[in-house]
Amino acid sequence: MALLILAHPNFEKSLANKAIVEELITSDINVEIRNIASLYPDYNIDAKIEQEFILKHKNIIFQYPIYWYNMPAILKQWFDVVLEYGFAYGSTGDKLKGKNFIPSFTVGAPEKDYKALGEHHFKVHEFCKNIEQTAYYTQMNYIDPIYFHDTSVNSGFTKEEIILKAKHQAKNLIEFLKSIE
Amino acid sequence: MALLILAHPNFEKSLANKAIVEELITSDINVEIRNIASLYPDYNIDAKIEQEFILKHKNIIFQYPIYWYNMPAILKQWFDVVLEYGFAYGSTGDKLKGKNFIPSFTVGAPEKDYKALGEHHFKVHEFCKNIEQTAYYTQMNYIDPIYFHDTSVNSGFTKEEIILKAKHQAKNLIEFLKSIE
Repeated sequence: MALLILAHPNFEKSLANKAIVEELITSDINVEIRNIASLYPDYNIDAKIEQEFILKHKNIIFQYPIYWYNMPAILKQWFDVVLEYGFAYGSTGDKLKGKNFIPSFTVGAPEKDYKALGEHHFKVHEFCKNIEQTAYYTQMNYIDPIYFHDTSVNSGFTKEEIILKAKHQAKNLIEFLKSIE
Repeated sequence: MALLILAHPNFEKSLANKAIVEELITSDINVEIRNIASLYPDYNIDAKIEQEFILKHKNIIFQYPIYWYNMPAILKQWFDVVLEYGFAYGSTGDKLKGKNFIPSFTVGAPEKDYKALGEHHFKVHEFCKNIEQTAYYTQMNYIDPIYFHDTSVNSGFTKEEIILKAKHQAKNLIEFLKSIE
């Protein structure tokens, strides 16, 4: 039903992203997972292999934590290597056309700080223009990101509360996937 | 006078970024260059070494090509690894305070396509919010990016024309550095 590109440089120690993925695995939807940080510890991503996985699916979920207002480096490397000319763009590069581009991420800091007068000055979606336009340029359907805040250990929430919110995010993802089936 | 973080995954084959760097090297300004893609081919960036270079300088130039509306993965890895808690942010993390954050990049496609009705739908600066806010959060002075368009081989410009524009960009950089001396 979906391909999940898992881009977390330290997934085993992650709390929120791990809880989201575990919830998806134990759900009744069929999700194929590519843990790209684990598959490519030297960042030497195999474009052809990744493209084969993409071709099997209509829904591509990108699961990652936001670091420095942007995706982790391993996901950027995936985009730079996998979305080749002739595959993802260019006159014959239409292999992603019509697929759904589904960002699912986590944000360490509270939502209240993501505004002009807050500590992070911009809304979360303002940091997403690069993924949005990447979807457009590859003729994919950009789905508004599914995410939640306060996953940082300094957020004041307990481990259990963060896991609960992560499971809620996984449920939103599952609901969305079922709604478009 | 300045530290230049050169983030090009294939610098030897680059046209514009190479011309900019060569122009800077042969100029009368003193620029220290960290070719991070060449220094860290496995993306295993040494935070402490990079931090030592930063501490020596007031001006930090980030030189890179825009790929997929964003910085190359090696530069994102540099941010994720080097801008540590206690160094770049946090109650005692003020080591970057007051330094100048100077983005200098190249854009493959023409400027006319970077607007709502164009092929790339957003203005270039809309793709820069993540670097802008990274500068703010580390208490650096964000300098408006210095860049030029049409560096793609499909842009219709000759190699010589692209090199000429790259040299012009280097001159703008040098002028800026001298103006704030």
